[in-house]
Order: sequence, then C-alpha cells, then structure tokens
Amino acid sequence: MTARPTSELQQQFYDVIFGTESPTGKWFDIALIATILSSVLIIMLDSIEGLHLAYGDLFWRLEWIFTLLFTLEYMVRVWCSPNRKAYVLSVYGVVDLIAILPTYLALLFPVASSLLIVRLLRILRIFRVLRLVSFMSEANILAGALRRSTRKIVVFFSMMMVITVIFGCLIYVVEGPANGFNNIPVSIYWAIVTITTVGYGDIVPVTALGRAISATGMLIGYAIIAVPTGIITAELASGMRGAPRSNRNCAQCARAGHELDARYCKYCGTDLPSLSKTGNN
Amino acid sequence: MTARPTSELQQQFYDVIFGTESPTGKWFDIALIATILSSVLIIMLDSIEGLHLAYGDLFWRLEWIFTLLFTLEYMVRVWCSPNRKAYVLSVYGVVDLIAILPTYLALLFPVASSLLIVRLLRILRIFRVLRLVSFMSEANILAGALRRSTRKIVVFFSMMMVITVIFGCLIYVVEGPANGFNNIPVSIYWAIVTITTVGYGDIVPVTALGRAISATGMLIGYAIIAVPTGIITAELASGMRGAPRSNRNCAQCARAGHELDARYCKYCGTDLPSLSKTGNN
Amino acid sequence: MTARPTSELQQQFYDVIFGTESPTGKWFDIALIATILSSVLIIMLDSIEGLHLAYGDLFWRLEWIFTLLFTLEYMVRVWCSPNRKAYVLSVYGVVDLIAILPTYLALLFPVASSLLIVRLLRILRIFRVLRLVSFMSEANILAGALRRSTRKIVVFFSMMMVITVIFGCLIYVVEGPANGFNNIPVSIYWAIVTITTVGYGDIVPVTALGRAISATGMLIGYAIIAVPTGIITAELASGMRGAPRSNRNCAQCARAGHELDARYCKYCGTDLPSLSKTGNN
Amino acid sequence: MTARPTSELQQQFYDVIFGTESPTGKWFDIALIATILSSVLIIMLDSIEGLHLAYGDLFWRLEWIFTLLFTLEYMVRVWCSPNRKAYVLSVYGVVDLIAILPTYLALLFPVASSLLIVRLLRILRIFRVLRLVSFMSEANILAGALRRSTRKIVVFFSMMMVITVIFGCLIYVVEGPANGFNNIPVSIYWAIVTITTVGYGDIVPVTALGRAISATGMLIGYAIIAVPTGIITAELASGMRGAPRSNRNCAQCARAGHELDARYCKYCGTDLPSLSKTGNN
Repeated sequence: MTARPTSELQQQFYDVIFGTESPTGKWFDIALIATILSSVLIIMLDSIEGLHLAYGDLFWRLEWIFTLLFTLEYMVRVWCSPNRKAYVLSVYGVVDLIAILPTYLALLFPVASSLLIVRLLRILRIFRVLRLVSFMSEANILAGALRRSTRKIVVFFSMMMVITVIFGCLIYVVEGPANGFNNIPVSIYWAIVTITTVGYGDIVPVTALGRAISATGMLIGYAIIAVPTGIITAELASGMRGAPRSNRNCAQCARAGHELDARYCKYCGTDLPSLSKTGNN
Repeated sequence: MTARPTSELQQQFYDVIFGTESPTGKWFDIALIATILSSVLIIMLDSIEGLHLAYGDLFWRLEWIFTLLFTLEYMVRVWCSPNRKAYVLSVYGVVDLIAILPTYLALLFPVASSLLIVRLLRILRIFRVLRLVSFMSEANILAGALRRSTRKIVVFFSMMMVITVIFGCLIYVVEGPANGFNNIPVSIYWAIVTITTVGYGDIVPVTALGRAISATGMLIGYAIIAVPTGIITAELASGMRGAPRSNRNCAQCARAGHELDARYCKYCGTDLPSLSKTGNN
Repeated sequence: MTARPTSELQQQFYDVIFGTESPTGKWFDIALIATILSSVLIIMLDSIEGLHLAYGDLFWRLEWIFTLLFTLEYMVRVWCSPNRKAYVLSVYGVVDLIAILPTYLALLFPVASSLLIVRLLRILRIFRVLRLVSFMSEANILAGALRRSTRKIVVFFSMMMVITVIFGCLIYVVEGPANGFNNIPVSIYWAIVTITTVGYGDIVPVTALGRAISATGMLIGYAIIAVPTGIITAELASGMRGAPRSNRNCAQCARAGHELDARYCKYCGTDLPSLSKTGNN
Repeated sequence: MTARPTSELQQQFYDVIFGTESPTGKWFDIALIATILSSVLIIMLDSIEGLHLAYGDLFWRLEWIFTLLFTLEYMVRVWCSPNRKAYVLSVYGVVDLIAILPTYLALLFPVASSLLIVRLLRILRIFRVLRLVSFMSEANILAGALRRSTRKIVVFFSMMMVITVIFGCLIYVVEGPANGFNNIPVSIYWAIVTITTVGYGDIVPVTALGRAISATGMLIGYAIIAVPTGIITAELASGMRGAPRSNRNCAQCARAGHELDARYCKYCGTDLPSLSKTGNN
C-alpha cells in the first residue's frame, strides 16, 4: 500500500477520524458510536407500527440527518486517506458505504422499503471504533483462541450435522406427518432445536417411542455441549498461559517459539538474544 | 476514614453487630439471616391473592414487626459506628435504609403499594452477613475471576449484541408481522431467546427459510456459549493455580517452583527461605 | 467398628454379597443390577394405565417376587455382616430396607398406594453395586471435585437466589397478574425457568418492558452458566493434574502429599522412599 | 490383513479411490462429498409433500443415477482392494453397501418405501472422506479426550439417570395424570426435558409444589451441566498440554521440563539425551 503524499490538513483529519490517540480523535470516536447507536435505534423504533404511524415523519427526517452525516464522514474519510483505493475496497470502507446507500436507493425505488433493513448493518460500524480502542487486545486473545479452534470446531459441527440428520430421520419415521413432523427438513429443524437445548415446543413428539428418541437426543446434546466448551476453554487457557512464549528467533537456526525463561536455543544450543521488552498482557 | 472515639458500650455493640468473631456476634448473624429470610417470605406469601385475603392483616402486622426490628437495628448500627457518615453512605448503609423506608412511605402515600416490592431488596442484606463469614474467600476467588474477565466479557457481549441484531433483522424480513415478528425489537427479543437457548416458543418461525435461519442461530448460540465459559474457566483455573506456588529459590541448588507450604527444598533437602511476603494474585 | 467373630459360612456369604473380587461376587453384582432395574421397570410400566389394566395382576405378582428376593437378600446381608448394627444403620442398609418396606405396608394399609412410588428409591441401590466396581476411582475424582467446589457453589447459588428474586419481583411489577404472573413465587419460578435457559413458555412476558427485562435475564443466565462450569472444570483439572502426587509418607514425620519428583520430604528434609511402582491413572 | 497381489491398474485405482495424496485422489474425494451431499439433499427434498408431487419423478431418476454411481464405486472399491474380504466386512464397507441397497430393495418390495429413509445413512459416508483429510488429527484429539472421559461420563450418566427417575417420580406423585403427567415414563421424559434445560413446555407443572420441584430440578440441571463440561475440558486441556513435555533431565544442570522437540537444554545449552521411549499417559 503505497501512501500518496497528503497535505497537512488531510493528515490532521486523518489523525482525528482514523486515529484514536489524540483527545480530539477520542471525542470523535465517542460521537461516532453515539450517532451509530442512535441511528440504529431510530430504525428499530420505526419498525413498530404504532410509533411509525405517530412519528414516521420525524423518524424519516432524523434518518436523513444521520445519512447526510455518514455521507459527509464517508467523503472526508476518502479525501484524507493516504491510499484512497485501499480504503474504499477495504471491509470497513464497504461497510461505511452500505451504511448510507439504502436511504438514497429508497428515494429512487420507493418500493424497496424492505431494503431499508440493510441500514441496520450500520451496527457493524461499531467494530471500526472498537478496533481502535484498548479492548482490542482482549478481542485478539478471543479471536486467536477461536482461530486455533477452527479445525476442531469444523470436525465437531460435521459430527453435529450427522447426528441431527440421523435424529431427524428417526423421528420422521417414528412420528410422521400426523404429529407435525411433516418432512425431513422440518424433522432436522426439530432435531437442531432439541439437541441445542433450545426447545421451542412448536413441534414435539407425542408417541412413547418418539419421546424416548427425543430424550436420548437431549442427553446427547447435553453431553456434547461440553465439547465446544472444552475446545475453546482449552485453547483460551493455553492462549493465556502461552504468553510466556517470546517472539525471539534463534540467530543460528532462525526457529522461534522459545519460552520466556530460555537462554539457549532448544534446537541448536546457540545463545538466544536477551529479552529487552515484552508486552505480555 | 478517621475513627471517632467510641465508648466502651458502643465498642461492644459494634463487635456484636458488625463483627463475626465473638460467639454473640455469630448468633446475631444467624438471627439476622433468619429475620431477613422470614421477612422476604412474608412479602412473597402476601403477593398470593388467596393468602392475602385470608391472612393479609397478620402479614401486615408481621411486616411492621420486621420493619421496627430493622429500624432498631439500623439506629444501633448508626449509633455504634466509629465513622457514622461512612456507614450511612456506604452501599450496605443504603441497602439497610432501603429495607425499612418503603413500609413507612406506604403509611404516608397509601397508593404506592407497588412500592412495597422495593422491600424485597432486603434480600441484598444477606450479602452483608455472608461478607463476614468464611465463604468470603471463595467469593473473592469468584469475584477476582469475574473482574479479570470483565474486558473479555464486554467484547463478547458486544459481539452477541451485533449477532442478535443481525439475526433479529433477518428473521423480521423473512417472517414478518404475519408470523408474530411484529417489529424489529420483538425480533431481537426472539433472537436473544433463541441464541441463549431459552426457547420459550411464544414466537417461532414457520417458514422454511425462517426455520433455517433459526437453526443457524441456535448452532451459533450453542457454539458461542463456550466462549464465556472458556473465559471464566481459564481465569478461575489460573486464579486457583496461581496461589500455591511461591517464587522462592533454594539457596543450595537455586531451583524454584516450591509449594507455599514447603519448608525444605524438595530436590536437595536444604532449608528454604521463609515466606516473608508474597504478593500473589 | 468392632468386628463380631463370624463363622466360615458367614464369611463366605459376606465375600459374595458385599465383596466384588471373587467371580461369584461379580456374578452376584450383575444379577443384583439386573433385578433392581427389572423391578424399577415393572413399577414404571405399572404406572401406565393401559398396561395396568391389562397386566396389573402380573405386575403385582412380579412385584412380590422382587420384594421377597430383596427381603431374602436383606436378611442374608444382616446375618453375614461382621457388625450388624453398623450395616442396618448405614445409608446403604436404610436404602435396602426402604426398597422392601412399601410393598408390605401396602398390604396393611391398602389406601397408601401412592406410597408404592417410594419403591422407586430402589434405584439408589444401583450405587451400592457401582461402589464396588472399578468405576469408583472415576466417581471419586468427580466427587472430590464436587466436594472441593461446595463452598464456591454455595456462594454461586446464593447469588443466583438473589438474582432470581430480583428478576421475579421486577417482572411481577411490570407484567402483573393480568399476564400470568399471578404472584411473586410464580414470578420467581418464571425467573428460574428463564435464567437456567429451560424456557417452558408456559408463562411469558408480553409487554415491551417485560421482554426487555427477560432478555437481560437470559443474557445474564447465559453468562453466569459459565461460573459453575468454570468452578467444576478448574477443580477437576486440578484434581487430575494432582495425579503426580504420590502416596509416599515421610518416614520421619509421616506426612504425605509429596509430588512425584520430590526426593526429600518438604516438611522435615528427610529422604523420601523411592518410587517403585505408581499406578497413576 | 494379508495383501493380495494386485495389478498395476488396481493399484492406480486404489490410490485414487482410497488414497488422498495424489491430485486425482483429492478431486475424487471432493466429487464424492458433493455426490453424497446432493444425494442426501434429494432424499430430504423428496420428503416434502409439495415437492414430491411436483418433482417426484425427477427425484426418482436422480436417485437412480446416484444409486448407480455409488454401486459402480462400490464395485470398483471391492475390485481394487488388496484385501477384499477385509474391506467388505469393515465398518466403511458395510456403510457403503447400506448406501445402495435400499433403492434396489424398494424395487422388489414396493411397500417398503419407509425403508428408503435408510438411504440417509449415506451421510455417514462423509466420515470416510474426512478420515482421509488433515482434519483427522484434530478429530483424534477430540476422540482421545472423549475416550479417556468414557468412564467418568458413564458415572455421570448413571447419576443423571437416578436423578431423572427420582424427579420423574416426585412430579408424578405431586402433579399426577390430571395435569398431563400420565405415568412415570412420561414424567421421566419431562424430567429429562427439564434437567437438560430443553424445556419444550408440552408438559408443565401447574401446582405450587410441582413448580418448586421443577425449579429445584432446573437449578440442579444448571449446576450439573458443568460436570461433563469439566470432564471433557480437563481431558482436552491435558491432551493438548500433556504431549509436549518429556521427562528428560539435562545431564549438565539436571533440570527437567524440556519440551518433546527440544534437543538442547534451554538453560545451559548441553545436548539432551535422546527420547527413547516415553510412556506419557
């Protein structure tokens, strides 16, 4: 990403809008969070019929104020970015655009009012602000544990998928359309509702055998809820314990992953560089 | 907090009422717990219509007895505190006041009977007594783990909030008011009911797409329930593991990792330095 | 417990009935488990009206056969116990008696047929057999973790109790008897149903504020489900990690609990006996 | 398993169909997964009445195409296996056969259309492919943790069984057939639904005592959900942590705790003894 030469003013705006260190930047972030949440709140309230009838016009005007504010912000972001193309095509850039487009589109195609729901994706913009603040290191630990767990979680969900398909078919054969299990997809939906212990109760087994199968499914669900928990917990614990690992590389063999208290490379016996400053947690 | 000079009698009352070591203090604590729980029980029973009609007068008299007892206790607490202002303004002081005020207010403003519910906050007084007993060290470990997890939990709940908003909007667009998803706040309520695996079943999806979205939400909820568990578990485990190990090194063989209660080096049998002050945890 | 001199025959019966090492003792245990489960199954089937009408007489005869078998077994147990009083008054002895008494009492007082349900406590006898077999060491690890967690769990449930009382009162004030929250105990029942994520859906909030309160309660329940899990997990993990502890006692001070890699008693500095063979896990 | 001499062509087919290293083998696996999932999808869609009426014939033709494909694959697998009998009798061989038989049987016995559900067991074939790919090491960690937990889980489920039986009987006595608790098996079904926190709401207690018993059951369920989680988590964590540490001591400085892949002492740089055989866990 090659930086374009930027003027002094652009640099100042950039520090306030994209940065978080300066006091002005912090106030900007707080104002942005407040604006995003207010905007989302207005959209939600507008969906309540009573309020829509009473205050629909007011909501519509507020919506336009928010949209114009976000549009202005978007234009300033583009203007002051050192690399405009990179910003516009980044995830955050796209989310910023999605936050303002629907209101304009609703002007052109009045029928597409359900498209207005897309505006709620504005809430994703919250992450832009959170990204900047100090909660990020915590989020990184969580994200790291989730990333390292990905493969185990995939294996686990493949297993879950197979279990729910099998239970769905069993209950479909046993209970059948007469008791609300109209077809296999519905029965699998029931199996997911049951095994995840949600238990709506909109579709329930009524025969003795069906109830026995359900009970088995529940106990299995109750037991295997332990598996993802175990995976994440073990990764999180090792992630938190893992802190002592330093980022030093051996000068001889270039391998990393040495423990904090290691003074010699465990692979080739060479002296390791001393630890100057490690910012662990 | 500068202590006011107190008379011998005040000191004795203070030891009984605020303290927990003396036998009289212990009996006072037990009597206090019994009174609080009886008082709360009476309020609950009084809310049952049948019992209110039959025994309403008795309940009202008992309520006045409890209120007078708590008032007396409150006055003695104020009287014997070395620092009265600090007590009255402390959390416990405020809770003690809240426990007695509603009954008096109900005399002045008879209409405010729903205010009587506030009396149930008396149950918070239980914590005052628990604070004094030995369960406190356990509670401290729990509280410590929760405090250290706070930032991770905040990140987690921000993520949850965004997920429930997105699922709420999706289901609102897909199912709509015709199927009970009247507006976005109701749909978000449904999303929370679903993702936390509560699953009342008062609002359920009926279309195939809505059910597919629900099933996805449930599986996500099932998987991410692991995250707070992992956070707390990892913190609790590190809190419990952290304590017993001291940082002492053996003077003879220089090895560390001795347990807190060890007096001799387990590797070479030499005396270990005594534990002066270890700031663990 | 002073042992009474027992005859050869009594000793033999004792080994078969109370012991588990001999082949005959193992077969006796398996037969006992089968009898207990059959007996429990019969009681369950008899509670189904259709089966009771068709096979009630058969069930009653089978019940008497089981009762006579258990009576015989109980008498033999008493007869061959080295310390009869200790057996009769032990938990297992009482459960053994409870397993047979109801059937006889039902003869004397025919009206007390609901008392027959007590026979289902026979299922507790399963534990007697499990106690003897090798699953016991696993159960001990679980029981140990639960015992060490007791105080934390008590603190946790006190917190839960207070939370459910507060949520129950809030919802009672907000929703009221008009929406099914008839009184405070019912509202607390609802709060427990919600916070434990069971979510029957028999009582649900219908006002916007009530739903917001519910959603908050669910999220709290979802978060604090992590606390007992964390407690038990941390204890279990430390219980399993504790395995490296050997059973060696110091010859000098007789204290145990030394780590596997310890060569000197950490309390008095004496040489520890060397580890010949440790059957860990 | 003695290998039969195979021709060059058989060996090539074997590498593609059973192997996963060659590029062709990878493409075969991907095609196989796609075919299995399409086939399962068709069966599910066919169970929806509307789609069955409109596209039943198309589905039936597609089903035959899939069946013929799987038949062909099965025959090739048998043909190119070095040990045909071992393949046919292996779990995978049986599942491969079950995946194709029902369609042929439905031709012979048209009445047995519910037998067609058995075709859904095709989904088990997914595991054949997963077995070959790199997710296997993750699955092994999970399977290892589950296997080591088996005995604890058995103890736990015995405890659960006893608890659900006791709660089922209690509620049956308290609520009785008048409130939907028709017999003991149904009451036990209710107890499982409640204690696993599924909470359908099809059978709910209505008396005050019944609700108190339910609430107790829920709190117990809420607490003991921690137990399997703790078991699996502790095993997973020890599975992930346990492997890397060896029991070797440095010959120079005698310190231990070196990782499995370390060849030099990380404290003093001396060569570590090579790992001959470490029986950890």
